[in-house]
Amino acid sequence: MNQDRVVATYLIETPHPLEHAAAVIAGEQSSGTFVSVPGETNELKERFGAQVVKVEELGVTETPSLPGSKPPKSQAGKVEYQRGRVQVSFPLHNFGPSLTSLFSTVAGNLYELQELSGIRLEDLELPPAFAEHYLGPGFGIDGTRRLAGVEDRPLIGTIIKPSIGLSTDAVAKLVSDLATAGLDFIKDDELQADPTYAPFSERVAAVMPEIEKVADQTGKKAMYAFNITGDLDHMLRSHDLVKENGGTCVMVNVNAVGFGALTYLRRRCELPIHGHRAWFGAISRHPLLGIGFTAYQKLFRLAGVDHLHVGGFNSKFYETNEEVGKSIIDCVTPMFEGTHVSRTYRVMPAISSAQWAGSAPEIYAATNTIDVIHLAGGGIIAHPGGTAAGVRSMQQGWEAALKGVALDEYAETHEELREAIKKFGRRG
Amino acid sequence: MNQDRVVATYLIETPHPLEHAAAVIAGEQSSGTFVSVPGETNELKERFGAQVVKVEELGVTETPSLPGSKPPKSQAGKVEYQRGRVQVSFPLHNFGPSLTSLFSTVAGNLYELQELSGIRLEDLELPPAFAEHYLGPGFGIDGTRRLAGVEDRPLIGTIIKPSIGLSTDAVAKLVSDLATAGLDFIKDDELQADPTYAPFSERVAAVMPEIEKVADQTGKKAMYAFNITGDLDHMLRSHDLVKENGGTCVMVNVNAVGFGALTYLRRRCELPIHGHRAWFGAISRHPLLGIGFTAYQKLFRLAGVDHLHVGGFNSKFYETNEEVGKSIIDCVTPMFEGTHVSRTYRVMPAISSAQWAGSAPEIYAATNTIDVIHLAGGGIIAHPGGTAAGVRSMQQGWEAALKGVALDEYAETHEELREAIKKFGRRG
Repeated sequence: MNQDRVVATYLIETPHPLEHAAAVIAGEQSSGTFVSVPGETNELKERFGAQVVKVEELGVTETPSLPGSKPPKSQAGKVEYQRGRVQVSFPLHNFGPSLTSLFSTVAGNLYELQELSGIRLEDLELPPAFAEHYLGPGFGIDGTRRLAGVEDRPLIGTIIKPSIGLSTDAVAKLVSDLATAGLDFIKDDELQADPTYAPFSERVAAVMPEIEKVADQTGKKAMYAFNITGDLDHMLRSHDLVKENGGTCVMVNVNAVGFGALTYLRRRCELPIHGHRAWFGAISRHPLLGIGFTAYQKLFRLAGVDHLHVGGFNSKFYETNEEVGKSIIDCVTPMFEGTHVSRTYRVMPAISSAQWAGSAPEIYAATNTIDVIHLAGGGIIAHPGGTAAGVRSMQQGWEAALKGVALDEYAETHEELREAIKKFGRRG
Repeated sequence: MNQDRVVATYLIETPHPLEHAAAVIAGEQSSGTFVSVPGETNELKERFGAQVVKVEELGVTETPSLPGSKPPKSQAGKVEYQRGRVQVSFPLHNFGPSLTSLFSTVAGNLYELQELSGIRLEDLELPPAFAEHYLGPGFGIDGTRRLAGVEDRPLIGTIIKPSIGLSTDAVAKLVSDLATAGLDFIKDDELQADPTYAPFSERVAAVMPEIEKVADQTGKKAMYAFNITGDLDHMLRSHDLVKENGGTCVMVNVNAVGFGALTYLRRRCELPIHGHRAWFGAISRHPLLGIGFTAYQKLFRLAGVDHLHVGGFNSKFYETNEEVGKSIIDCVTPMFEGTHVSRTYRVMPAISSAQWAGSAPEIYAATNTIDVIHLAGGGIIAHPGGTAAGVRSMQQGWEAALKGVALDEYAETHEELREAIKKFGRRG
C-alpha cells in the first residue's frame, strides 16, 4: 500500500474515450477551471495532481445510464458510451487524513460532470495516516461479543415492532418478553428515535430495568441498541443516559447524522455504535451512480461504527444475495493489511429483513463467517412455539450451517427448527 | 399547511399499481414487518400510520429505471412499470421536529423496496414546529449583503484556483489582487480545507490582513468564505479563528459534514455559512432516484446555511438551465408561508461553473432575482483587461439584464463587457 496516496476505484460510463474521462476526473478533483489560470504550473500539477493509475475496458452501450452527458464534437451520428473501471490516485497531502475532505475529493463534484454518463465510487485504498486520526470501532466484533456474552455463533437479534407508536410501557413489556426469550440483541427501529409520544429518556428508563431484571434471573444481559439519532447535543446526552442506565449499545442512523457528528460522538463514546444505513439505497441502487458498499463501509468503519447494516438474504429489499454476501465479507475483512496498523477496524454486519432460521445456511455458505448480528422480526416472534422457540430455531439454523448438515436433516431432531421450516420455509 | 403532519412528494416508478406502491411506502415508513406482529392494532395504525394523500399518473414504461424490483405474481408476460407522483403524509409526532429523524423517515429505507423501480423525494411540506427547533440561516440574504456591503445587485465572486497546491503566501497574494480588483466575494475551493502543505490556520492568518489592507484603502471589505469543512472540533476551532481574524464567512461542504455537525455548528456560529453541495450529483443526477433540489434545499436551509450552491447556467455540469433556474428560485422562496413563522429561511444561491458576464441576462430572465452570489473563475481573471475589468464586466452583464437592454447593445458603451463577449462569448 502506498503511504502517501489515496487510490479510488470508479465504475464509469462515458461518451469519450475512457482515458480522457479518467483524466477529467483526476483534473477536476485536484485542479481545474475552464480557462487555464496563472499559478497552475507544471511543477504544481506534478506535486498535487491526481493520476490515472489504471483503465479497464468493460464494453460499450448505446444508451447513456444518466442524463446530462455531452459527447465530444468529433462523435458524428450515433454516440457510443464506453464503460470501464478506472483507478485514480490522489496525493494525501492535498487534503490530509480527514474523512470529510477525503469524501469531498473522491466523492465530490465529479458526479456532475458532462463527460460522464455514469460514475460510481466502488472502492478506496487508504494510507495508514487515516488510522492515526480515526480510531475506528471502539468495540468491534470482540467487544460486542464480550458485552453480549455470545461466543462461537452469531448474535440473534430482533427489532422492536411496530416500528413506531408503541407506548413506553408497551416497549418495556415487549423487551422483557424478548430478553426472557433469550434474544442476544434487541434494537429500536430506525424510525424510532425521540418521538413526542414516547420520549427517548423515558424509553431508556423503562427498558433497562427490564433487561437487568431478566439478566438477574438468567445470567444473560441482552444488548439493546437505543436509537440516539438526532441533533448532536441530543446524541451526546442520550449516550450518557444509556450508559448511566446500564445500557450496552447505542444506535445511529449514520447517513442522517453524517460524518461530522458521528466522528465527534465516537471520540466521546463508551458503548458500541450500531450503525444503521437508512438512505443507502438512494446512493447505491443505481449500478452506475453513487457509491458501492465496499467503499461506503470503509468510510464508516473509520468513522467508528461497531456494527453496520448490510440488508438480508432473500429480503424484501432490492439487493441480490450475492451483493449482501459481499457486504458481509467486506465488514469482517481487516483494513490496513500489510501496514504497521495493527487494529483491523472489523465491524459486525447486521443482517435483517425477512430473515428466519432457514436464512442461516445460505448466509454461512456465502460468507464463511459467524461474526454477524442476525436480526429477524416475524421470523422469531411469529414462530408457532412463541418467541423463545423462534430464537432457538435461529440458533439451530446456524448450528446446522456450521455442522454442514442439511437444514431438513437437522430439523428432524430439532423441533423449533422443524416448526420454523413448516411456517416460514415456503415463503418467497 | 397542516400543523401536525409532514407531507412528502415522491416521483415513483413501480411494476405494481401506483396506489399499492404508495401504500407500501406509507406502511414501510411508519410500521411494517413481513408477518403482522402483536401490538399492531388498528387504533395504532390510525394514530401513527402514514397516509397516501394523492396519486397522479404519469404514464407507463417497459424498462425499469432501477434494478431489483419485483413485479407482482399476477403480472404474466411483459411487465409494465407505472410512473407517478405520490404524496404521503406522516404524523409529526412519529418523529418530532428533528431533521435527522425526519430524514430517516422520508428518505430512509424506502429506496430499497422491491415494489419500486424508481423513487425520488421531490418536495417536503414541513409544519412550523421545525421552525421552532431550527433557526435556519443566521444571516441569510440581508445579513450577507450587509457584511459584503453590496446592495441592488448580485455579489460578484470567485474561487481560489488552482483548487489545491497554492502555498499560503501565494493564496494571500492572490486574495490581495482579487480584493483590489473589486470582488465582493472570494471563496476557497471545496477541495481546499486544511491540507498539510498549507494549513487552515496559516491561511486565515495570511489572508485576512490582506483583505483588511485593501478594505482600509478602498472602504470595501471582500467577504472571504474559508472552507472549515472537517471534523467538528476542527470546524468549531476554525470558525473561531476566522471570527477572531475579522473574517466574515465560513464555508462547509454540507454533504460531507452532515446534518448532525452542521446544526451543531449553526447554534454556535457567528458568521454566515456558505454551503457547498459537493456529492449532490450522486444523490440527484438520476431522475428517478435520490432527492430533488427542492426537497434538498429545504433541509439545509432549516439546518442553517446562509448560501447554497446551485450549479450554473451553461456550466460544465449535467443540469439543464431550467433546473438551475428552478434551484435559484427555490433558495429565495420563503419557507413556512401562511403560518405564524415570520422568518423566511431565504438563502443566497451561489451560481458557479463556466460563468461569465454573459450568463447574467439568462439567469435573470429565468429567475427574476438579484439575490445571488455569481461566481466566475476564468470568466473574471482571464478577462483581457485583467481581473478588475473582469469584475466590471460581470457587473455590467447584470446591469444590462436589470435594465432589459440586450447584452450586445449594452456592450457598445461598456468596454469591459465588450471585451468579455469577444473572449468568452463564442464558447459552448
